[in-house]
This record gives sequence, structure tokens and C-alpha cells, in this order.
Amino acid sequence: MNYRMQELQTFLQKQSIPGGLVTSRQNIFYLSNFDYNPHERFVGIFVFPNDEPIFITPAMEVQMIKEAGWKHQILSYTDSDQPWALVGHLIESRNKMNQFAVEKDDISYSYIEKLQQIFGEVEFASLDSILTEMRLVKDADEIEILREAAAFADYGVQVGIDALKEGITELEVLGKIEFELKKKGIKEMSFPPIVLFGQNASNPHGASGDNKLKKGDTALFDLGVKYKGYCSDITRTIMYGNPGSELVKIYNTVLQANLAGVEASQPGTRIGDVDLSGRRVIQAAGYGDFFPHRIGHGLGIEIHEAPSINEVNEGLLKSGMVITIEPGIYLNSLGGVRIEDDVVISDYGCEVLTKFPKELMIVGVSDDEQN
Amino acid sequence: MNYRMQELQTFLQKQSIPGGLVTSRQNIFYLSNFDYNPHERFVGIFVFPNDEPIFITPAMEVQMIKEAGWKHQILSYTDSDQPWALVGHLIESRNKMNQFAVEKDDISYSYIEKLQQIFGEVEFASLDSILTEMRLVKDADEIEILREAAAFADYGVQVGIDALKEGITELEVLGKIEFELKKKGIKEMSFPPIVLFGQNASNPHGASGDNKLKKGDTALFDLGVKYKGYCSDITRTIMYGNPGSELVKIYNTVLQANLAGVEASQPGTRIGDVDLSGRRVIQAAGYGDFFPHRIGHGLGIEIHEAPSINEVNEGLLKSGMVITIEPGIYLNSLGGVRIEDDVVISDYGCEVLTKFPKELMIVGVSDDEQN
Repeated sequence: MNYRMQELQTFLQKQSIPGGLVTSRQNIFYLSNFDYNPHERFVGIFVFPNDEPIFITPAMEVQMIKEAGWKHQILSYTDSDQPWALVGHLIESRNKMNQFAVEKDDISYSYIEKLQQIFGEVEFASLDSILTEMRLVKDADEIEILREAAAFADYGVQVGIDALKEGITELEVLGKIEFELKKKGIKEMSFPPIVLFGQNASNPHGASGDNKLKKGDTALFDLGVKYKGYCSDITRTIMYGNPGSELVKIYNTVLQANLAGVEASQPGTRIGDVDLSGRRVIQAAGYGDFFPHRIGHGLGIEIHEAPSINEVNEGLLKSGMVITIEPGIYLNSLGGVRIEDDVVISDYGCEVLTKFPKELMIVGVSDDEQN
Repeated sequence: MNYRMQELQTFLQKQSIPGGLVTSRQNIFYLSNFDYNPHERFVGIFVFPNDEPIFITPAMEVQMIKEAGWKHQILSYTDSDQPWALVGHLIESRNKMNQFAVEKDDISYSYIEKLQQIFGEVEFASLDSILTEMRLVKDADEIEILREAAAFADYGVQVGIDALKEGITELEVLGKIEFELKKKGIKEMSFPPIVLFGQNASNPHGASGDNKLKKGDTALFDLGVKYKGYCSDITRTIMYGNPGSELVKIYNTVLQANLAGVEASQPGTRIGDVDLSGRRVIQAAGYGDFFPHRIGHGLGIEIHEAPSINEVNEGLLKSGMVITIEPGIYLNSLGGVRIEDDVVISDYGCEVLTKFPKELMIVGVSDDEQN
């Protein structure tokens, strides 16, 4: 049994919970290394405090689950079977349970009703917190994968910058980035990537479109890949053509805020202080009102996971946590600048996984214009 | 109030249900034309039998919801507010409800527990069936969008075929398709597209990878776009280099099965018979065991929605339903052939939305080889 499953068993033992069911794609992957494509069909892992876990799955997935390394029991069903009848038999074959743990944030009420029909009277306990907590600290294998995922994100930014030319649209650049990453074997981005030019970057939730690049625009890239089940997430902002002096000031302010956030990313630091360390830099420069979001989020199997790096988070950073540091300043008149790194907390400080340079970069300027 | 909201109200009136909550991204879009990006924040539409609906949303989305055409009340909250306190006030301000309808297949048990805390004793009714039923029949605007979405899918197949050359990988072709569709303004595919060469196509759930194209391979394209909120879905299979005689036989069998399925797609037809009309062609050719999936599915806001076109579906086709017809034959030794169209049931027959030619297409053969 892998150490994750053991930790979950220990939780059930301590809480005296006789059984539970894991249903979310991310936690099934975390526990089994099997990344299923959620269709309408029921997939779940039953867990027990003292017995081996049991995977319930459509028959067509059995081979893949074994190949992913699952050594325990698998109950499978075909399209003409009733998966809930299978679940019913499984539960009825065991001692009566008065309590049963589920992922309350994930499981649908339809599934809960089916479980209630099987159990009769039962109290539902939550697996959400324990699984979130377990996934907070990454192990060495996870960190190595995240390191590789970050290198692909670096490459994506480079492709995007290389594609810039006057008149090209955001979507064209975005397509080029995805195309080149596909050529490197990347099958999936960690989220729909974002390329924004000029004023279109002034909305922190802006969407890429037919907007054409022109001299004096910023170009903002926010992208990442899904690699071996783990996400990367980088943002870089470059200047296309000579920027005005305020854009330069904004850029350097965001850069200093990013560096302050990275500097604060050490084991034992109060998580809210990571946000504040970057926020204070931006406030001191007079742009506090134009940094309307938290400085970052946890990163792993999901693109946004715990911990949330916001100023009121009283938790402490621990070695093995992986977070983003992504301050930004957004002005309607000028556009937006955001600089984002993926950072793993180490025993004594941190390692920045995204390596793409952060110094102010100006492209699309001919030698004449530079002189 | 739009006719969809009216239909939902009529349902609540007939069932004497005093209120309900719509939470799924697809049904919020269906009712409001607002397509939100699901983050962790709560978004929902409260519906009542006799009063106007109320949208609950993070404040940052209010403008977009109005721009999408929402004319009714909006309750918004900021990141420092408690959305469930807002929901609580809303519910407490109304007459006591003993019954409340939710999307049981969508809503998480955490949300149900929050509603239970607010309501005290309450029975949950289901909105799943009525919303599924409403979405089954598309209106003229929806069909026009689906027609346009299908044209982009046709274009994607053409791009893929044009990109074929010996040694190119599946992921490279796939990247090229997405790149060219991005250039046409397509922001999102309706599902991760699939390009499979040769034996890799022998698994109906095969994934694209580094597999290189070689003479004698089939090349299977399964892709679609998300356009104005609606999905397209096409599959075409072409021959790269001269195919052997069995591949030609398989291709023509699948094509005849596709045509039989399309032919059967008429108002009043038992849905299961659409599947059987294609399945019998494949069985008669001796390949019945190698067509292991249903012939198709409903298509609309979701890539897979009702009705399921499988042989045991006793429902009847109605004018305005949109379905896929996608028979396939998969042989480990040779690969797979699948031909998929999007079809809208009309008053007297059907219209095939995907127009890309279906006749056996052989590419990558020089004149010498052809003679």
C-alpha cells in the first residue's frame, strides 16, 4: 500500500470512521496514479481503516488502472451492469456502517442519495480536509515532475516572444505556443493559455482575441502545461517597442514585488506575509489599488489548489509546498503587467522552478530606434 | 422573461415546488446566455414559480451577466462577503419552503449541507430531468450556431489532412489543427481533439502521441470546436498511402453504417433503431464484435448530452434534436475507422451539419504509385 493510502487509513482509524469513498479525478489520481477521463460513468475508490482499498470502475479502464500501479482489488462493471448495484453488494457485504466519509466538495447529491439508499441511516463525514492537507506538501517525485512542467512553461513563453511581430493577433500567438508545445509531446495545457496585448491586459481576467500587436504594447503571457498529471503556471510580460516611462516604472515595481514575494517564501513564514511582502512594494509605489488579487496559489495536480496565498491566510509555509508568486498592476490606460513564478519551499528557503528571465525585456525595436 | 425561464417556471408551478437553484455551468448558460468560468466561487440562479429569477454571483461578473442579456435581479458579493449569508437572507426573506429543487446530478453535497442549514427541514426535488428535456430540442438560433460550429469542424479536418506527410507525429498534426482554428478566432475546442495513425486508432479511446505517420496507415481525426457556447464533433478517417483490401472493405462498411444511421434519423423514429440501423450493416459485414460503442449522442451546449443513441433507447426522435452518428470498426491488426456526422432532426427528415466529404480518400500517393 502506498504511503498516501496509509495516511488516509490512519485518518480513518483516528476518527473511527469505518469507510469512505474518493470520487474526484484529482484525488483518485493522487491515490492511485490513474488519471481517468471523467465521462458519465461512475469511478471511485472505497477506503477502509483496516482493509485494503477497492477500486470501482468501468471494465474498459481495468487494464489502465493496473498499469498505473494499482495492486489492490478492482470491481469492474460493463455498460449493461448497474454500478450502484455493485456498490450496494460491496457495502452490504461488510459490517454495518453508521458513518461514511465522502469528498463533500466533489460528490454530487445524486450520488449521496444513492449511498443513502444503500446505507439506510448514515452520517456523512468529510474527506475534503485530510486530502487537501495531504496534497499540500509534495514529495520528491512530485517536485521533480513540477520542475519539468515548469521548464515546458518557460519554453512556451520563449515561443510566444519569438512569434511577436506587428499586426499578429493574440490568438495567433497563442496557437503557435500550443503548437510548439504539442511538438514537444505536451498533450494538454494546465488551463486555457492567455496572450494579451496592450490595453487588453488591463483586465486581470482578460481573454485572448483578435487584438493585433502594435508598437508600444505590452505582451502578457500566462500559461502552463499539464505534465505527468501536474501543472505549471508562468506569467511574463514584455514590451513590444519602446515603452513609455510609466510602463517601465510599473514593470520594475511588479518585478520588485515578485522578488519580495519569492524572498519571503521560506519555511515557517506566515502565508499571509508572502502576499503582504509583495503587496507593500506595490503600495509604496502608489499602485496599491491596481493590484486587485491575491499574490498566488498552491500548485500541483490542480492549477489552483491549497494553500491560497492571500493576506489573511494565517497558515505557515512548510518545506515541500509549491506555490505561485504572481503580483500584477493593471491600469486601464496602459495595460497590465504581471510576473509569475512557480516556487517550491525547501528546508531553508525556496527554489524557483520557472527560470525564464524576469528583467525588463524590450523586443521589436530596430537598432535605429534604440539609438 | 425568456421562454426557457418561463418553461422552468411552468414546471415549478405544475409540480407545486416553491423554489429552486440552478448551479451547473451549462444550465446557467442555457437560461441566461452567460457562460461563466467556474472557479471556486459560488454562482447560481434562484428560480421561483411566480416571481422573477435572481442571479447570485461574484461582483466582478455583474457587468458580463448584464451584457449577456439578463434583465432580472442580480445579488452580488465581493471576496470579503459570505455568499451563503446572502443566500440565507434571500431564502429567509421569502415564505417558508418545505421543498426546494436543485440539479442533483451537479450540485455538491457541501452546497446541499449549506442549503439544509438555511432551510432547516426541507425536501430536495430534482431539476435534472426538466432541464435535460428542455435542452433536447434546439431552437432555430441554436441550430444556426451548431451549423457554424460544424463548419469549423470541417475546416479542422481539412487542415489536418493538408498537414499529413511521412514521419509527422499525431501531436504535430493536432497542434497544426488547433493553430489554424485559433487563427480563425476559435478560442476553445469542444474536447481535446484526437489524431490517430495506423494501429494507434484501434482503440476507440486512443490518445494522440509521438506516433509517426507511415505509408499504409489510416489517419483518424476526431475533433470539434466550441462556438458561441455550442459544440461540434466530427470524425473522418483517411488512408495515407495505398490501403490493403481489408481496410477498404472496413471503410466502406463504416460509411454504409454512417449513411444508414443518417437515413434513419427522422422525426418519430425510435432512437434505438438509429443505432441498430448502422449496427446491422456492420454485423452483416462480419464486424459486429469490432463496433463496441453506441452509434452516437446528443450534441449542444455539452459535447455529450441527451439523447444517448444506443440500441435500448426507447425514446423517439423529434424535430430539433441534434445528434451525432459515428459508427466505427476497430481491429488491433489494422487500426480503426470511424465516420461521424452532426445531424439535426428536421420536420421531415434530417440535415447533416458536417459537410466534409465521406468517400474513401487516399492521400500521400504519388502518380507513379497510383498507376
